[in-house]
Amino acid sequence: METTTRLLLPEVTEALNQHPSELVELTEELHPADLADLAGALEAELAQKLMAVLPIEIAARMLEACDEKQRLELFEPLAERALSAAVSITDEMAADDRADLYALLPAELRSRLLEAIDDDESRDIRQLLSYPEDSAGALMTTDFVALPATHTAAQAIDLVRGSAAEMETIYIAYAVDPHGTLLGAVSLRDLVTSPADRTIDAIMNPNIVSVHADEDQEDAARLLAKYDLLALPVVDRTHRILGIITVDDLMDVVEEEATEDAQKMGAVEPLETPYTTTPLLQIIRARGPWLIVLFVAVMATENVLEHYSHSDLLSVTMLMWFVPLIVSTGGNSGSQSATLIIRAMAVGRLDGRDTLRILAREFAIGLVLGVIVAVVGVCRVMATESTRSVAMAITMAASITAVVTAGAMVGAGVPILLRRLGIDPAVSSTPFIASVLDIAGLILYFEIARLFLP
Amino acid sequence: METTTRLLLPEVTEALNQHPSELVELTEELHPADLADLAGALEAELAQKLMAVLPIEIAARMLEACDEKQRLELFEPLAERALSAAVSITDEMAADDRADLYALLPAELRSRLLEAIDDDESRDIRQLLSYPEDSAGALMTTDFVALPATHTAAQAIDLVRGSAAEMETIYIAYAVDPHGTLLGAVSLRDLVTSPADRTIDAIMNPNIVSVHADEDQEDAARLLAKYDLLALPVVDRTHRILGIITVDDLMDVVEEEATEDAQKMGAVEPLETPYTTTPLLQIIRARGPWLIVLFVAVMATENVLEHYSHSDLLSVTMLMWFVPLIVSTGGNSGSQSATLIIRAMAVGRLDGRDTLRILAREFAIGLVLGVIVAVVGVCRVMATESTRSVAMAITMAASITAVVTAGAMVGAGVPILLRRLGIDPAVSSTPFIASVLDIAGLILYFEIARLFLP
Repeated sequence: METTTRLLLPEVTEALNQHPSELVELTEELHPADLADLAGALEAELAQKLMAVLPIEIAARMLEACDEKQRLELFEPLAERALSAAVSITDEMAADDRADLYALLPAELRSRLLEAIDDDESRDIRQLLSYPEDSAGALMTTDFVALPATHTAAQAIDLVRGSAAEMETIYIAYAVDPHGTLLGAVSLRDLVTSPADRTIDAIMNPNIVSVHADEDQEDAARLLAKYDLLALPVVDRTHRILGIITVDDLMDVVEEEATEDAQKMGAVEPLETPYTTTPLLQIIRARGPWLIVLFVAVMATENVLEHYSHSDLLSVTMLMWFVPLIVSTGGNSGSQSATLIIRAMAVGRLDGRDTLRILAREFAIGLVLGVIVAVVGVCRVMATESTRSVAMAITMAASITAVVTAGAMVGAGVPILLRRLGIDPAVSSTPFIASVLDIAGLILYFEIARLFLP
Repeated sequence: METTTRLLLPEVTEALNQHPSELVELTEELHPADLADLAGALEAELAQKLMAVLPIEIAARMLEACDEKQRLELFEPLAERALSAAVSITDEMAADDRADLYALLPAELRSRLLEAIDDDESRDIRQLLSYPEDSAGALMTTDFVALPATHTAAQAIDLVRGSAAEMETIYIAYAVDPHGTLLGAVSLRDLVTSPADRTIDAIMNPNIVSVHADEDQEDAARLLAKYDLLALPVVDRTHRILGIITVDDLMDVVEEEATEDAQKMGAVEPLETPYTTTPLLQIIRARGPWLIVLFVAVMATENVLEHYSHSDLLSVTMLMWFVPLIVSTGGNSGSQSATLIIRAMAVGRLDGRDTLRILAREFAIGLVLGVIVAVVGVCRVMATESTRSVAMAITMAASITAVVTAGAMVGAGVPILLRRLGIDPAVSSTPFIASVLDIAGLILYFEIARLFLP
C-alpha cells in the first residue's frame, strides 16, 4: 500500500460510513492513480459506495487508473444496479480503457451496455474488441488528432485546441489525406514554431514509423523505445490510420512482458493478475502443471541411476555421493546461458541468424568455466579421506568440465531452437533446461567414471 | 540487424570508400536511431569516416541514439584527432546524453574537453557527473522549460516557442518562484487552451510528483508509470528544480532493470553491454564466480549422502536412485515461488509488510502442489518392479510433499528476508535457493525414509 493511501484510508472509511458527500472535495485533490489505490484498499462494499458518490468524470479517471481485476469489481455491480450511470461513466473514459473494460464484462451485460450507448461509441468499442489480445490494435486508442494535410498551421492549432479535452495526446497529430491515409506526423512543437500560414504538408515529417493493427504489442513497444516517440500510429493494410498507441500504455506493456517472461522462465504459467491479489487456486493452477511436467521429465534419472548401480563399477556407492553436485552444476551453467540468450532475444538483440557463432561462443565459455569449477571439484575430492584417489579426481574433473560445457550449449541452443520453431523461448524455462541436463549430466558422469575407475 | 540497415549497408560502404560527401543527403533522411544502427554495422574505420563527414547536428543526434559502447568507439577517436570538432558535436547534444558520454571518456581526454567548452556547459556536465550511478540525478537532463509563476499564458507560450529548439520536451513546463523552487506543472495543452492573460499560477497543477536527485532511477520509473507522466521533475532537498527525466529515458530504464533482474535470477552478474557484443572474457567473469559459489554451496550434499550411505538403512541403494528427482522437484517449487515474489517486489506490488500472510499462502500452495506431485511419484514407484513396495511409496509421497512445501516457503522467504536486510532480492537468484533446497531436501528425504523403511 502506498503512503498516500495508508494515510487517507481511515478518514475515507469514516466519511463513507457517515457522510459520503463530503468525500467529493477530498477526492478532487487526489491523482486518479492514488484514488484507484484507495479504492483497492477499501472493502468491496465501501469501494462501491465510493464509486456511487464520485462525480462522473472522476469515476472515469479512477477506472482508467485501475488494473483489470479492480476495474471489473468496481464497475460490474454499478452497471447491474444503475445502467445509465454506468453508461455516463464509460462515455467519459478514454477509448482504449473503455474497450478493455467492455472486454472484461459478462457477455449479457456488455450487450445491454452496447445498446444503451451512442451508435458511434458502440461501433468504436466493437471495432477495438475485434483485434486479437496483445496486438497493437487491441492496445490503441481511437482518440487522436488527425489533420488534413492542406490545413495551415493556424487552422491546425485551432483544431487541436478545440478537441484537446477528448484526446489522449495533443502533442503529436497525424496528417491525413481525404481517405484517411497516413501522410506524416506533426508535433505541437512544430505547429507552434511554424509560421501561421504554412500548410501541414510542408511542416509534417513524412518519414514516420507505424505498426499494423495485428502486430504484436511487444514489437510496438520496441519501435517506440527505439525511436523515442510519444505515440505510435496504428494503420490498416491500406495505410489508413486507425488509432495511436501512447507511450504511457507501452510503458505498462514493457513491464508486463518482463513479468510474463520472468514467470515463464521460473516455470510458472503467467498470472493474469498481480501475485498478491491472485486467488490461491489460480496460483496452484499456474504452477501445478509445470511442476508435474518437470517431475515426469526428470523421472528418467531413476532409470539411469538404477542402470549404473547394477553395472560393474566398483566405486558406484562413492559415485552416488556426488550426483547432486554434478547435476546441479550442469543445471546452473545451463540456466546462466538460457537467461542471457532469452533476455537478449526479448530486447531484440538476437535474431537467430548467428546461431552458429553463439553456440561456438557458448562452447568456449562453457569449457573455460568447466575447467575452473573442475579445479574446485578436484580439491573437494582430495580433501575428503573417503573419496581421495587420483582416478576419482580425474573422473570429477572430466565430468564437471563436460557437464558445464554441455550446460552452456543446451542452455543457449534450446531457446534458439524454440524461437526458430515459432515457440516463445521463455517457456523453455530454465528449470526445463535443467531437467534435460540432469539426465544428460548423469550419463556423462557415469560413462566418464567407467573410463577412469575400476 | 534491422531491415533498414541491411538494405543500406552496401550503398553506404561504397559511398564512404569512394565519395563520402554524397552521403550527407542520404543520412539526412534517416532517423538518428537508424543511423546509429548503420554506424554499428560498419567496420570501425568506416564508422569513424562516417562521423567525420556528418554535419555537426546529425552527428550529435546519432551519438544520442547510440548505446554507451558505440558512443565511446565513435567519439573517442574523433576527440583525439580533432578536439574542436568534437566540442561542437557535444555542444549540440542533449545535456543528459552529453554527460553520459563524458562519463565514459578517459579522465585525461575528459579534462581537455571540459576546458575547451563553455564554462556554463562545463559546470552543467560536472554537476550531472557528480550524482551516483543509477540515481535520478544521473539520469535527468537540465534542458527543461522553467516558467516564472507570474507570467501570463501568452508570455509563457512565447518563452516556450523561443526555447523549443534546445529543450528535451516543451510539452510540459515547470512553474518556479524567483529562487527556482518548484511550484507546479503546466502542460502545453493547458497553455494553448487557457485565455492569453491568465497567469501561470492560476493555470498550473500544484499537486505534482517529483523525485530527489539521489533517489533510485527505478523509483522514478515507477512513479512515472503510475501517474502516466511525460516527464518527472528532479528536485534538491530544498525543493528547487534541478532537471527533468523524460519518459523515453525511463522506458530504457525499465527494460535495463528487467534485464538486470533476469540475469541476477539466472545467477549471472549483470552485463554492462548487450550479450552479443560483450567479450567472452567478460561473460566468463560474470558467470564464473556464481558458478563456483553455487558449487561450493551444494558440496555439502556429498556429506549428507555419504552420511546416510553409512547408516543402518537397508534400502539405501534404492533410495539413491530417486535423489535427483527429489532434489530437482524441491528446487523447481522454490524457483516458482522465488520468481513470483521477486517479480512482485520489482513492480512494487509487495512491500514486505505482509510477510506472514505470504508465507502462510505459500505453505498452503506448497502443500497442495506437494500432494499432487506426490501422487505422480507414488505411481512411478509402483510402476517399477525393483522399487515397488508400500513402504517406499509412503516414503516417496511424504518426501515429495515435504520438499515441495519446503521449496515454496524457502523460495518465498529468502527474497523477503534479503529485501528486509537491504539486499536486492534478485541476487538470491533462483539457483541459489535451489542449492539450499538440495541440502534440506536430501535430509528430509532420508529422515522420512528412516521412519518408514527398515
